[in-house]
Amino acid sequence: MTKQETIQCAVFGASGYSGVELLWLLHNHPNFSLAYAFGSSAREAEPISALYPQLQGRCDVLLQAWHSDLLPQLAQQVRVAFLALPHEASAELAPLLVAQGIVVFDLSGAFRLKNPAVHQEAYGFAQPKLSQTVPYGLAEFSQLNGHEPLIAVPGCYPTAAALAIRPIRQLLSDNCVPIVNAVSGVSGAGRKAQPHTSFCEVSLQAYGVASHRHQPEIAQAVGRDVLFVPHLGNFMRGILATIYLQLKDEVRASAIEDSYAACYADQPLVRMVQKPPSIQQVAGTPFCDIYYKQHQQQLIICVAIDNLLKGAAAQALQLANQYFSLPSTTGLLQVGAVL
Amino acid sequence: MTKQETIQCAVFGASGYSGVELLWLLHNHPNFSLAYAFGSSAREAEPISALYPQLQGRCDVLLQAWHSDLLPQLAQQVRVAFLALPHEASAELAPLLVAQGIVVFDLSGAFRLKNPAVHQEAYGFAQPKLSQTVPYGLAEFSQLNGHEPLIAVPGCYPTAAALAIRPIRQLLSDNCVPIVNAVSGVSGAGRKAQPHTSFCEVSLQAYGVASHRHQPEIAQAVGRDVLFVPHLGNFMRGILATIYLQLKDEVRASAIEDSYAACYADQPLVRMVQKPPSIQQVAGTPFCDIYYKQHQQQLIICVAIDNLLKGAAAQALQLANQYFSLPSTTGLLQVGAVL
Amino acid sequence: MTKQETIQCAVFGASGYSGVELLWLLHNHPNFSLAYAFGSSAREAEPISALYPQLQGRCDVLLQAWHSDLLPQLAQQVRVAFLALPHEASAELAPLLVAQGIVVFDLSGAFRLKNPAVHQEAYGFAQPKLSQTVPYGLAEFSQLNGHEPLIAVPGCYPTAAALAIRPIRQLLSDNCVPIVNAVSGVSGAGRKAQPHTSFCEVSLQAYGVASHRHQPEIAQAVGRDVLFVPHLGNFMRGILATIYLQLKDEVRASAIEDSYAACYADQPLVRMVQKPPSIQQVAGTPFCDIYYKQHQQQLIICVAIDNLLKGAAAQALQLANQYFSLPSTTGLLQVGAVL
Amino acid sequence: MTKQETIQCAVFGASGYSGVELLWLLHNHPNFSLAYAFGSSAREAEPISALYPQLQGRCDVLLQAWHSDLLPQLAQQVRVAFLALPHEASAELAPLLVAQGIVVFDLSGAFRLKNPAVHQEAYGFAQPKLSQTVPYGLAEFSQLNGHEPLIAVPGCYPTAAALAIRPIRQLLSDNCVPIVNAVSGVSGAGRKAQPHTSFCEVSLQAYGVASHRHQPEIAQAVGRDVLFVPHLGNFMRGILATIYLQLKDEVRASAIEDSYAACYADQPLVRMVQKPPSIQQVAGTPFCDIYYKQHQQQLIICVAIDNLLKGAAAQALQLANQYFSLPSTTGLLQVGAVL
Repeated sequence: MTKQETIQCAVFGASGYSGVELLWLLHNHPNFSLAYAFGSSAREAEPISALYPQLQGRCDVLLQAWHSDLLPQLAQQVRVAFLALPHEASAELAPLLVAQGIVVFDLSGAFRLKNPAVHQEAYGFAQPKLSQTVPYGLAEFSQLNGHEPLIAVPGCYPTAAALAIRPIRQLLSDNCVPIVNAVSGVSGAGRKAQPHTSFCEVSLQAYGVASHRHQPEIAQAVGRDVLFVPHLGNFMRGILATIYLQLKDEVRASAIEDSYAACYADQPLVRMVQKPPSIQQVAGTPFCDIYYKQHQQQLIICVAIDNLLKGAAAQALQLANQYFSLPSTTGLLQVGAVL
Repeated sequence: MTKQETIQCAVFGASGYSGVELLWLLHNHPNFSLAYAFGSSAREAEPISALYPQLQGRCDVLLQAWHSDLLPQLAQQVRVAFLALPHEASAELAPLLVAQGIVVFDLSGAFRLKNPAVHQEAYGFAQPKLSQTVPYGLAEFSQLNGHEPLIAVPGCYPTAAALAIRPIRQLLSDNCVPIVNAVSGVSGAGRKAQPHTSFCEVSLQAYGVASHRHQPEIAQAVGRDVLFVPHLGNFMRGILATIYLQLKDEVRASAIEDSYAACYADQPLVRMVQKPPSIQQVAGTPFCDIYYKQHQQQLIICVAIDNLLKGAAAQALQLANQYFSLPSTTGLLQVGAVL
Repeated sequence: MTKQETIQCAVFGASGYSGVELLWLLHNHPNFSLAYAFGSSAREAEPISALYPQLQGRCDVLLQAWHSDLLPQLAQQVRVAFLALPHEASAELAPLLVAQGIVVFDLSGAFRLKNPAVHQEAYGFAQPKLSQTVPYGLAEFSQLNGHEPLIAVPGCYPTAAALAIRPIRQLLSDNCVPIVNAVSGVSGAGRKAQPHTSFCEVSLQAYGVASHRHQPEIAQAVGRDVLFVPHLGNFMRGILATIYLQLKDEVRASAIEDSYAACYADQPLVRMVQKPPSIQQVAGTPFCDIYYKQHQQQLIICVAIDNLLKGAAAQALQLANQYFSLPSTTGLLQVGAVL
Repeated sequence: MTKQETIQCAVFGASGYSGVELLWLLHNHPNFSLAYAFGSSAREAEPISALYPQLQGRCDVLLQAWHSDLLPQLAQQVRVAFLALPHEASAELAPLLVAQGIVVFDLSGAFRLKNPAVHQEAYGFAQPKLSQTVPYGLAEFSQLNGHEPLIAVPGCYPTAAALAIRPIRQLLSDNCVPIVNAVSGVSGAGRKAQPHTSFCEVSLQAYGVASHRHQPEIAQAVGRDVLFVPHLGNFMRGILATIYLQLKDEVRASAIEDSYAACYADQPLVRMVQKPPSIQQVAGTPFCDIYYKQHQQQLIICVAIDNLLKGAAAQALQLANQYFSLPSTTGLLQVGAVL
């Protein structure tokens, strides 16, 4: 493509937290343009700024209700659809869009897991047909060529964990089961009012101990079993994961450094940092910050991302940049976040 | 009464934020005892610590569902009922309890307003019959004698505003309309999950500008019209009100000081403070902290309370202490808060 | 100027909270370029990302220590200096820069007040010589023409208050003294560690009641006496001011609406909003959101800004845009905040 | 002792966060009485409520400056001293008090570590002479008999970690190195203003990765090496530790349950909980809440305490109760926290 072309896009689930970040990134992107923002029918014709007043005067896109009658028109007008929908809704909608020739970047978990049984258990519905051929878009490790019909955008926790572990997985002892201790901000639970995300109820607390549906996704992404314990923290956005690994005998510091450099030296959205990263330093940014410390045969990694950006919307855009052969950071470095 | 007697009590609405604070105060009170804790039927036989795990091992009272068949039994076993219920539920239940000879301290707005039309407009249902004779229990200004069948416990904002303004109301210029600018913590909105009290949505923001139902209550309690603007703030508990008043000509500093002293010199739960109070210094306490500064003919008052304690549960207990001729601070000074 | 030219700039005080926001805005601005970032000598040659790791990989400007020997070189290389310095440091440095022909946008209070006695009392040092001719840059009300040598950028509280009050000041009753009740986030107190801004000490609390140095600035900006009560709140950035005014007899709603429209219909960085604004909806943005409600003869205004952006860095850039005849929003709408 | 006796106490370091919690617990304790509250000389004769206005009207103890001339008088008047001082100050003062026959509960790290070399490295000064005989007061595992002259109160992180691990240490695989991933509230860093605990700088972040001075203390308390990674979180008080352990082959669920029951069935201040505990449910309480989940051969434990109470002041009182043969919970269950 030439830089002059503008690629028309649609966002589904635009009123949710990930959806609105997508919308805002697209609104400001030099190569993409937001043609449609679909929300729930209750929001028909409401400007997005009615839900997010921070956008008033900057992005007054109207939300539309989706119904399948719009499919032909959509197929004519947009080349790309971003789905920030519930898992099962994505599983149903994505094939319809793909059939119309629309490229789909799906932010749900519908198409991420390769093993049907694991998918069924994690999500409670059968694995959709296309799953086996859908690339898992961990952006720094994917090489989209512009011919994939459907791309699964990784989950927030798996993005953080896999970016931290994959580069050094060949250095791990054979029987090492990485421990991923992660804390997420509340926006990860979505925009719907729920008792456990009420202001007065939020506190630091583990949940889904060794039973969260992101566990198989992390395991698949790093190529071995992992132990995953997520926590909910009292902040709005961001994920901090502290990861514990057993190294092979006689792994030197330089081997670790080299392994990360081999993966990320040319990857501007991963920053190797010299101090343990804070949530604050990645919140509102598309970066993944990785710190590690070797302690005898153990390796401790601290990794931080913004769950709604690198863990959702910004990674989706990074993949779309890759798909259309744009530099990976296009439209991502300057733009702030909505929430 | 002698100190040896234990007064049996029931709490209605015990699973809510004010209700659980009441429950905990009663549990620790030297003269009162918690005989019944009524919650919603969905909570039947659940220990309160299932909802508030901070109470486990300290107060494992079981929640019961209320139905009117229990009335005779209740009348035999308890002398006092505290109602932390929705306004209309209180309006219906209180007369039934009173008819059984149970003393009712009602924390709702059902019986606070004297003017029927104002009540109807504020609450959307007709003023209950008993209202005209129910004392308004602003504790420092009430003198319960142990014969009142039903006491209206003031609202949280009105408690703060009235304690600040009443002592100096004779010093105000005739046409002064006090301005009450108040900020409340999120617990004031109750325990039910709602979009505007979701963790990611809470921020400092005004609401109900000059239209909040506590405006007529404040006006009634201070004896003149007021302008009231509440705000929701990003903290769990507490209210800070900053109040602006016009003084009469030639009011001296000593007159203000004397007026407060006349009301509060013997009132241990109101603290006159020399620096503007913070929310933090009253959170978890039964105190009302009052600071004032005269600036020419204007008087600025900063007043802080814990909305769930001095603005609800602790004031109810303070009134109950008064009712039974106990020292006003009995059971209130040491006990911490639940939430 | 033509759009092709790049205007070279220096930021003094670049390591502080306002300074780093300036630096980031300049870094991303299409017409300005950051040539120098001066911090304290202790930070000599340190990249700004050592202090603000969120900027690593996006803006790795080096901090320099300033000494006056650099003046000739600076004069050759930059056209504009932004001063985010302590008041007295600005008072000393600004004339030196102006003497070299460098345009100075000063974010301190050194040149804001016109009355020498008031200045002396507010700031504790004599009014600098240039003060009388320095324009007060409340951006929506200033008309910089590119020939002013020095511009005083308004304070954060005064920006919020004056933008809210100035449009309707002709509608106020003669003896109305506007009441400005404002709450600021903690970043307003600067980056230096202080007891009252320690994490465990911050709570909602008034300070400087009717004695804050922004009171005379607000009074000057709105043309009449005001009563100003600032508060510190438990959030990082943003100011919410709730303002109380007495209208003249028989002011109609349409007169208020028309007055705001006359000032702001063509001003994209002021948003008239239909619900009371939250801090959240302006945090990280260059906007000033204004809501008002008429209640009999009283007018209540709720106004929200980001203290570090519209109240400091973004307003300085908005003025610089104006100075160089660029659209006022240039470089301000998309860029996120640092902190 | 009989219950009628009152035991006179002194608190050193009473103005700090742990010190003031001690002071408040002593103030309300039925058997102990606060005779002296020593703060820094700068605070001479200041009431504690000048620093902590929440205590005004409830506890108006005056702070005194300590100098050694007071030693004889102190020895006559108090039986117990609680030291909430910097480590080195404790190391110097404790022997002087002990020499006078005063029982010392030391909350610093001065006397906790048994290995002199480890002590020297962790604290940077030589191990004090008494260290070898000083009991380490992990309350649920100590049996004070009233004859010990000096007791080392455990650190906050070690209290949480050791209470979680000790009961099941015989179930761990031989080469298991427990991983302790812990998050502390900001009060753990003390009351002094510091850059990293400024409100705007606090965020979730690891620190002292595998190098914190509490690592050897935890290792000593659980009897094996541990890997300890502490984090600072954006909340005021509380510690949540998530702990990862390898079990021996064929450890059954019942063995774990039995092991905890054997230790804690009669320990009212440890609560075995069925859901992962939140910080909120222990904040302001003397409890340690422990949750565990077995996952194959791994055991995950979530443990929460209030760092200033169970991790400092309340544990000191619990030990003092034990020392004087009082029930362990005496004076601890009802009293709220100060901060």
